[in-house]
Amino acid sequence: MNCVLFKQRPDQTVFKAGLCAEMSSMTAPLYDPMKHAELLASYCLDAGAGQRIQVTATTLALPLVEALHRALLIRGARPVLRLEYPGQQGDFYRHASAELLDSLHTGDLADMEYTDATLRILTPQDAVQGSDPERRARHTRTLSPVAQLRSQRRWCVTLSPTEAGARAAGMTLAEYQDFVARAMFLDLPDPTAGWAAVRERQATLIERLSRADMVQIVGPETDLTLRVGGRVWANSDGKRNMPSGEVFTGPIETSAEGHIYYGLPTSVGGQAVSGIRLEFRAGRVVSASAEVGQDVLLASLETDAGARFLGELGIGTNYGIQTPSRNILFDEKIGGTVHLALGRSYPETGGLNLSALHWDMICDLRGGGTLSLDGEVFQAGGVFVG
Amino acid sequence: MNCVLFKQRPDQTVFKAGLCAEMSSMTAPLYDPMKHAELLASYCLDAGAGQRIQVTATTLALPLVEALHRALLIRGARPVLRLEYPGQQGDFYRHASAELLDSLHTGDLADMEYTDATLRILTPQDAVQGSDPERRARHTRTLSPVAQLRSQRRWCVTLSPTEAGARAAGMTLAEYQDFVARAMFLDLPDPTAGWAAVRERQATLIERLSRADMVQIVGPETDLTLRVGGRVWANSDGKRNMPSGEVFTGPIETSAEGHIYYGLPTSVGGQAVSGIRLEFRAGRVVSASAEVGQDVLLASLETDAGARFLGELGIGTNYGIQTPSRNILFDEKIGGTVHLALGRSYPETGGLNLSALHWDMICDLRGGGTLSLDGEVFQAGGVFVG
Repeated sequence: MNCVLFKQRPDQTVFKAGLCAEMSSMTAPLYDPMKHAELLASYCLDAGAGQRIQVTATTLALPLVEALHRALLIRGARPVLRLEYPGQQGDFYRHASAELLDSLHTGDLADMEYTDATLRILTPQDAVQGSDPERRARHTRTLSPVAQLRSQRRWCVTLSPTEAGARAAGMTLAEYQDFVARAMFLDLPDPTAGWAAVRERQATLIERLSRADMVQIVGPETDLTLRVGGRVWANSDGKRNMPSGEVFTGPIETSAEGHIYYGLPTSVGGQAVSGIRLEFRAGRVVSASAEVGQDVLLASLETDAGARFLGELGIGTNYGIQTPSRNILFDEKIGGTVHLALGRSYPETGGLNLSALHWDMICDLRGGGTLSLDGEVFQAGGVFVG
Repeated sequence: MNCVLFKQRPDQTVFKAGLCAEMSSMTAPLYDPMKHAELLASYCLDAGAGQRIQVTATTLALPLVEALHRALLIRGARPVLRLEYPGQQGDFYRHASAELLDSLHTGDLADMEYTDATLRILTPQDAVQGSDPERRARHTRTLSPVAQLRSQRRWCVTLSPTEAGARAAGMTLAEYQDFVARAMFLDLPDPTAGWAAVRERQATLIERLSRADMVQIVGPETDLTLRVGGRVWANSDGKRNMPSGEVFTGPIETSAEGHIYYGLPTSVGGQAVSGIRLEFRAGRVVSASAEVGQDVLLASLETDAGARFLGELGIGTNYGIQTPSRNILFDEKIGGTVHLALGRSYPETGGLNLSALHWDMICDLRGGGTLSLDGEVFQAGGVFVG
């Protein structure tokens, strides 16, 4: 099956055909914070009267945060804005006492208990050097009960385009804003119609995946098998991730056998890690290395017992995102890639892994690789064939 | 008694004597956010290990907020930053549903319950037009339990200089930053030494005030009597207000008789109100008018039962602040002025008034007026003589 979503959107084809080169450089920017805010408040969060909705962002996302605050108020919700200054996390990890890193305050847990839904707005910043990965992993472990509570409520993660994000993607800010807008369907008159089409196509993929038990991923320096029989495949249609375009499940925790190479760069807590190689035995990481950021990788594996086990197998379906932008929210959706996350499972998949960590790592099969279901090729060279 | 604090600070005299006119225009700005943050974390908040300290500010105060976050972390405290975007309050009052205005969420109360100390950083903004005073008063009433809890913990209010603040004060930003720095003693090598001197001199004033019962204020369009016998006078030495320089008490709630004209402009919730005239009978406001913002005044008086009674009588002692800057934190400290607040008392003064409102209004006695204690003149024309 081929699932080239964007090429099949007739309105966009017509729109693009109408452009000549000169007009292209004169068109208004596709990214509109108000349209983004409206999509988040209505489609993603389904914000209703009286709901206490926590929005976390750095001040780099102010235009979006302001528009969202108004959109949530107008819907009768109770927005709770949690703005951070850029670099606040870095300051925290540099200066926090051991007590702060290791002990959770009742007040921080209570804050999440009284929250109906959360939205985290990513604002890509330049990688922070010198932040201690061990201190970060300790604190992630401390915050585990908050993460646990958050995962039991409605939640969504999105991104507000920043200068640093554009740099990481190798684009100008204007190009990056357009890229972000297209990935979220903000260039369509009704973005929710685009997401409805995604949901429909992914349902077809899930029909086949749900009948499978053994998954084998073969690619460059990669030969890994996993079992997924009895687990539930989720249809990620832009409600929890904006943008989205993936189907995912929680593999059986003790099933992973073999080795995998993650070709796309990733990051954890703002620190770049790339060229990751993992080896699994009975589901557990028994060997790990990274070309960049190996200390971060090794510290993360020590977060807790669940950090060495997989919590997610995801398959990207968004062929509208073609190039990696060094941001996991977008990169893991690239059509033709698969991602495997170390750490916490999503309970709705039937996954049982508990961890404070959830770290997605991406394996690109587009250059030549296969994903097989019970011995039958489902995807080859990044294209669905099953 | 004359309490001209600044003229008596020898280090400043020496410093100033060393300056010639050319050097003066070349000197570095007096306002340093890091020095301000250090004073707040150590002297004002006395932040200690593990204390959960909530800092509220708009993003206009970012340099101060960042420095403070680091200073609090270094002292082992748990900073909880509550950043707002400029105009967030205005958006809230414009768009919030009736349910939001009228009902307090348990989560917002819990947040304050788990807080050891609060710091509010004022960031003067241009007055917001069109915000409905009645909606604001309703919400202030709703937040009353939070305000009540906050007042029972350690708290401090300070100000970060902004462009709008400078405009309101009729200064350039650079002049305003210097004005703010001087009022907080940030121009001294050790600001806490300056505040120790304030405390000492104010103790002498309190010695006399504590023996008084009947206070009479006579000035332009003003003749008001109050009783304070048995109440406690507080020595405001910069711990709760930075800057400070005032002594205050809670007058006996039913004692105010007469009328008063507040010559200095004031504001409530960012809305300018000036030329206020109040008439009191048995402690209660029976007649009220304002030359500007009368609707705001009348709506505030309806906040709750306590809003028509006085909660504070304060006497400014800071002769380093000579000119009003249209900001209550500074204006009420002006040496030679008295202020009377409608609404909530400070419990430590023995004041009993309960209200969601606490609105300071300033009466300038420097142009010719007296404050007498049991018939004996204590202050005349703005100078302490008692």
